[in-house]
Amino acid sequence: MQVTASQIWSAVEAIREQAPVIHNITNFVVMNNTANALLALGASPVMAHAEEEVEEMVGIAGALVINIGTLSRHWTPSMLKAVQYAHRKKIPIVLDPVGAGATSYRTRTSLELLEAAPITIIRGNASEIMALVNSEARTKGVDSSALSEDALDAARRLHETYGSVVCVSGETDYIVAGADVTRILNGHILMTKVTGLGCTASALCGAFAAVNGDFALAAAEAMAVMGIAGEMGAMKSFGPGSMQVNFLDALYRLSEENIDKLIKIDG
Amino acid sequence: MQVTASQIWSAVEAIREQAPVIHNITNFVVMNNTANALLALGASPVMAHAEEEVEEMVGIAGALVINIGTLSRHWTPSMLKAVQYAHRKKIPIVLDPVGAGATSYRTRTSLELLEAAPITIIRGNASEIMALVNSEARTKGVDSSALSEDALDAARRLHETYGSVVCVSGETDYIVAGADVTRILNGHILMTKVTGLGCTASALCGAFAAVNGDFALAAAEAMAVMGIAGEMGAMKSFGPGSMQVNFLDALYRLSEENIDKLIKIDG
Amino acid sequence: MQVTASQIWSAVEAIREQAPVIHNITNFVVMNNTANALLALGASPVMAHAEEEVEEMVGIAGALVINIGTLSRHWTPSMLKAVQYAHRKKIPIVLDPVGAGATSYRTRTSLELLEAAPITIIRGNASEIMALVNSEARTKGVDSSALSEDALDAARRLHETYGSVVCVSGETDYIVAGADVTRILNGHILMTKVTGLGCTASALCGAFAAVNGDFALAAAEAMAVMGIAGEMGAMKSFGPGSMQVNFLDALYRLSEENIDKLIKIDG
Repeated sequence: MQVTASQIWSAVEAIREQAPVIHNITNFVVMNNTANALLALGASPVMAHAEEEVEEMVGIAGALVINIGTLSRHWTPSMLKAVQYAHRKKIPIVLDPVGAGATSYRTRTSLELLEAAPITIIRGNASEIMALVNSEARTKGVDSSALSEDALDAARRLHETYGSVVCVSGETDYIVAGADVTRILNGHILMTKVTGLGCTASALCGAFAAVNGDFALAAAEAMAVMGIAGEMGAMKSFGPGSMQVNFLDALYRLSEENIDKLIKIDG
Repeated sequence: MQVTASQIWSAVEAIREQAPVIHNITNFVVMNNTANALLALGASPVMAHAEEEVEEMVGIAGALVINIGTLSRHWTPSMLKAVQYAHRKKIPIVLDPVGAGATSYRTRTSLELLEAAPITIIRGNASEIMALVNSEARTKGVDSSALSEDALDAARRLHETYGSVVCVSGETDYIVAGADVTRILNGHILMTKVTGLGCTASALCGAFAAVNGDFALAAAEAMAVMGIAGEMGAMKSFGPGSMQVNFLDALYRLSEENIDKLIKIDG
Repeated sequence: MQVTASQIWSAVEAIREQAPVIHNITNFVVMNNTANALLALGASPVMAHAEEEVEEMVGIAGALVINIGTLSRHWTPSMLKAVQYAHRKKIPIVLDPVGAGATSYRTRTSLELLEAAPITIIRGNASEIMALVNSEARTKGVDSSALSEDALDAARRLHETYGSVVCVSGETDYIVAGADVTRILNGHILMTKVTGLGCTASALCGAFAAVNGDFALAAAEAMAVMGIAGEMGAMKSFGPGSMQVNFLDALYRLSEENIDKLIKIDG
């Protein structure tokens, strides 16, 4: 897939102009960062999980993002309802299967969500993506990112089974949609020391999917913007504390020039 | 209403000296920021929501702040109990009806809280305030802030019905208590790009209400301090990431001189 | 107890090399900061609370940290299960009894956890530690830190009853394990203006206990590192906002030289 700086920039401009509502049912750890990243990019975040309002919230959203980072049975009915309603309303859906493979409960719940309705984009690290295909696989914690051809195979199988665009993130991010694999080489090692930047990436996939009906392209745009803002942030940072701050500033100050200068995509 | 720099400064000093406990039943997105803003100002934040302890917590508090940002039925019984107990103990109560109008569940729950006991201060943006009066009104997400005479009318009607001081926040903040409307012109556009600064404003209303029995004045003081700290923070910031940091530093470093130089109130 | 800079440094290096999974069942206010502090130090944080997965999560952890800061009955069964399973698997357990004494519900729940299985390290401020021994004691909010000989007596009694290492934190941190009391004099007043640094200290106790079987030493190492990173962070900070950022950067950049230069322990 061809992804150019000017395509990415147009999508960023569309987000800033339309300020699409991104409805997140996400985990407690990252709610604040995720909302701030969406705001910095130009979208309108909503974090809401009550069953009583989930359909109304989905109804005003440009995209739905489901993240199982602090999963509990009190939240799964809303997640399932949201996914089914978003599908009915043709609203793109992003799933972040945080910790799939770390516990069978997370793997099982991710698969339930995948069965409940077609998921537009799945974004996870290599071990999470592999766990969705081979539910016997085990990962150490939620940060494992040992990538291999196995992860790409798993991504392809997920795409075949569920029709989802699959983003395997890590040092290189892979966007898998059928035979087509796009590699995004942007990013910075300091990003792995800030909690929840993977979750932020999933939320940004939602924002780009809200303004761009080509969902493989939307996922690539989101991951490129993550990586570029990460590189811009890291240049000014002394550690993960300042990185978190500078990453948000970079998202907010992102320009076509930045993108053009820093973009490293292997289409 | 006349609001002078020296009145505001006296109230800030009172908060720093008395360190009133502010009991927040608030949303997951902003708990950390809200607690940090209260600490930076000089108050003692408590975030607690269990029904088992809600009366004991309210009992040690100088003010109660209820915020429905991530509402669910697991939390509403505690909110209702807290509001009723605070009223019985004559502890001022602030309500932040986040997203009222965005879903009927939020509008309905806000009205239930208003019916449960007299709320001292209601703080919301224009669309939230309007939704409490005309529950058929709809807003896009939780950030809508289209202000109009309609919002001021709604604020006046809320005041008449419930006796609450009503703060309609936006580019200009309006404090409505009967015929009297106070306009606070402080603030900075970058504040709209940091999630939860509205929620912080509500918490600060609680802190000022804890040390000042004139609740319209307390609300005006809180909004002025928010806006002034926002302007101070924005001067040093490159985007919403650094804004969040510099806003807290500014709250902490607030001096009579800052207030005197920056205050813009139209009483 | 003798605690040297080179012992602390060895432990930090062990954490960075082994990246132990630290499983936190903690409060909503501090989840993000706690995860970031553990990452900055070199550990692998997991925040998870569902009963369905609690044993699997504990099973992959190097330490378990229980923090009751935003306690509710929906979380206590998981906390109890986690503590019992960790004990069975010989995984060290840290308990942070946030707000014990502020409400009887918190005191009661802390004692239930202490009865459920032997807790390796208890870390709290003076009033929390005292409340666990004299459950009639009352504290104002969760930040009270009036320290006295009473707190040390309470710590000794807790140690005798439950066998736990007890850390009483405040301007001076005390590590109590039998007759032996270690005093850590590091830290900075600005740390009291950032919400949740006590909770971070508890999480760091978990990280050090995961790599060091001498748990009194592990607690002392954790508190020394907290205090040293706090001093390093404060040097660059203008208030609690920048302090939070610079504290994380300092944890990440911690070197043997920093520790050697700043350490103030009275063994």
